[in-house]
Amino acid sequence: MSAASLKALYDALKVSAKKDLRSATITAELAILCEESIEFVRKSANFVPLISGVPGKGYGMLRLKGGTRSSRPINTALFDRDVAASDLAALLAGETSAYSEERLSQLLYTAAMSFCVAVDLSGGEGQKSPNQKSPGTFFEILVGHLAAMKLGVNPAKKVAVPTSDGAEADNMLPTDFIFDLGPGKSKVHMPVKISTRERVVQAWAHQRVLEGMLGAGRYKGVLVILTETNKQKDVSVVEVCLPGQWRAYQMYIAPMYRVYYLDVPKKYEPLRDSYPFIQIWPFAKFFSEYRQIQSPNP
Amino acid sequence: MSAASLKALYDALKVSAKKDLRSATITAELAILCEESIEFVRKSANFVPLISGVPGKGYGMLRLKGGTRSSRPINTALFDRDVAASDLAALLAGETSAYSEERLSQLLYTAAMSFCVAVDLSGGEGQKSPNQKSPGTFFEILVGHLAAMKLGVNPAKKVAVPTSDGAEADNMLPTDFIFDLGPGKSKVHMPVKISTRERVVQAWAHQRVLEGMLGAGRYKGVLVILTETNKQKDVSVVEVCLPGQWRAYQMYIAPMYRVYYLDVPKKYEPLRDSYPFIQIWPFAKFFSEYRQIQSPNP
Repeated sequence: MSAASLKALYDALKVSAKKDLRSATITAELAILCEESIEFVRKSANFVPLISGVPGKGYGMLRLKGGTRSSRPINTALFDRDVAASDLAALLAGETSAYSEERLSQLLYTAAMSFCVAVDLSGGEGQKSPNQKSPGTFFEILVGHLAAMKLGVNPAKKVAVPTSDGAEADNMLPTDFIFDLGPGKSKVHMPVKISTRERVVQAWAHQRVLEGMLGAGRYKGVLVILTETNKQKDVSVVEVCLPGQWRAYQMYIAPMYRVYYLDVPKKYEPLRDSYPFIQIWPFAKFFSEYRQIQSPNP
Repeated sequence: MSAASLKALYDALKVSAKKDLRSATITAELAILCEESIEFVRKSANFVPLISGVPGKGYGMLRLKGGTRSSRPINTALFDRDVAASDLAALLAGETSAYSEERLSQLLYTAAMSFCVAVDLSGGEGQKSPNQKSPGTFFEILVGHLAAMKLGVNPAKKVAVPTSDGAEADNMLPTDFIFDLGPGKSKVHMPVKISTRERVVQAWAHQRVLEGMLGAGRYKGVLVILTETNKQKDVSVVEVCLPGQWRAYQMYIAPMYRVYYLDVPKKYEPLRDSYPFIQIWPFAKFFSEYRQIQSPNP
């Protein structure tokens, strides 16, 4: 599998995702893309350990054989380079109940990182390879597909701004994923990001706009993020966290119902335990508590 | 004046700005940097017209003589390539009352663009030249200096998050410029951006956090932006505007008191005239209405 073939698979996935994100077509296309990405990585890259600046976590990276190009940092406990294709296929079909939360975390992280690290290793001048934006789009499709299967509907990517006079007619606000679960259920606002840094305030701001337009508690805000790791000088890994700012956003902009990470940053874990009690958990937890998110109750 | 000399002037300015942004030192250092940038441009670049996609506005760009490197788009009516050093010096010393609003707009735009286009033309591998982040920092120093002189105090770049228990003690929130004008006066929250696109929601979100922490109307939000121009395929210029989204932010996140542009985008002008009546004006207007901003009244 070459970089050009991965790009062709990714381009096809993007087209299919616009038609029906929760379809069996996406399950199949995601499975092929993840498996081929991992196959590409197995064949063409070596694993190189990195110095972890995060207590209790180990990190490494992939480096192209006979080259200098290297990948983003990889959490060694979460990335399963030898994952079975059948496990990836089950995950992507939404058949998650047989797995422990720990194993589910590994499958989710491995699927999410597979294409991202393949892009890191395969980009380059003149090559027909996926570009640097593609990991973000891929991750959004992966998370959107898994969430849409569990929540039972496809998401929209815009909402109508309510109008009280003609001036604002036809004003649609572009958003991240919006799941309308129908009468008697919650609605879900789900921003999906590879990492956040200072841009994370956008998620809270859009939650605030939804609250203002459509009522407090009408949309549950569910933010899904891959990781906050940063590779420093190519040898050590840290997590870039801004817990004080997150606290202020949760207190003063709008409440986020859940924040799920595929690799939860250590410094965000304590935010669960004191006011304003931001619920930051592994994304694997979504698959056991999604009924609570569907419920109209807070 | 070489690119390396411009970089040295810029580096010195950055250091001085951290000490006392409204000082005569900054007036002098900004004046030299703007004049030398324009001198560099006059000597080393030709002006090339661009096709304007904006009704009523003309745009061009600078192109390095004997090279292919070109600058960001330049509004031809606002950029005065032959500006007198004495006019720039007067502007940067805050002596603005002798100028019409129209002429003041030209001086402000010319000063702001001078260093930005010099950076566009001088960047490159291995060269000791200012980097691509430096126009944003320069523009922030320029606007901060002019505002600090008129408002009479230096800004801070963080605010304390109020605490009701020990858990959040010592929690400082990093912000854009915060001017505390003292008792009996308004306080001012002034984000400064080269251009905004989808990132603009940050300005409204931070305004919301200030409102939530310290009370509605306590801080007047004053957003200052250089331009929203975008050069397409190197020949035509458009303005990237999201008026529907701005309306939603102003209605549902927090009210911004003023939005000043150095080159006001055409599509934002009508936002003044219908609900929620966002006050978007040329930055030159700040110099005649800053007393209204200082007033504690809305």
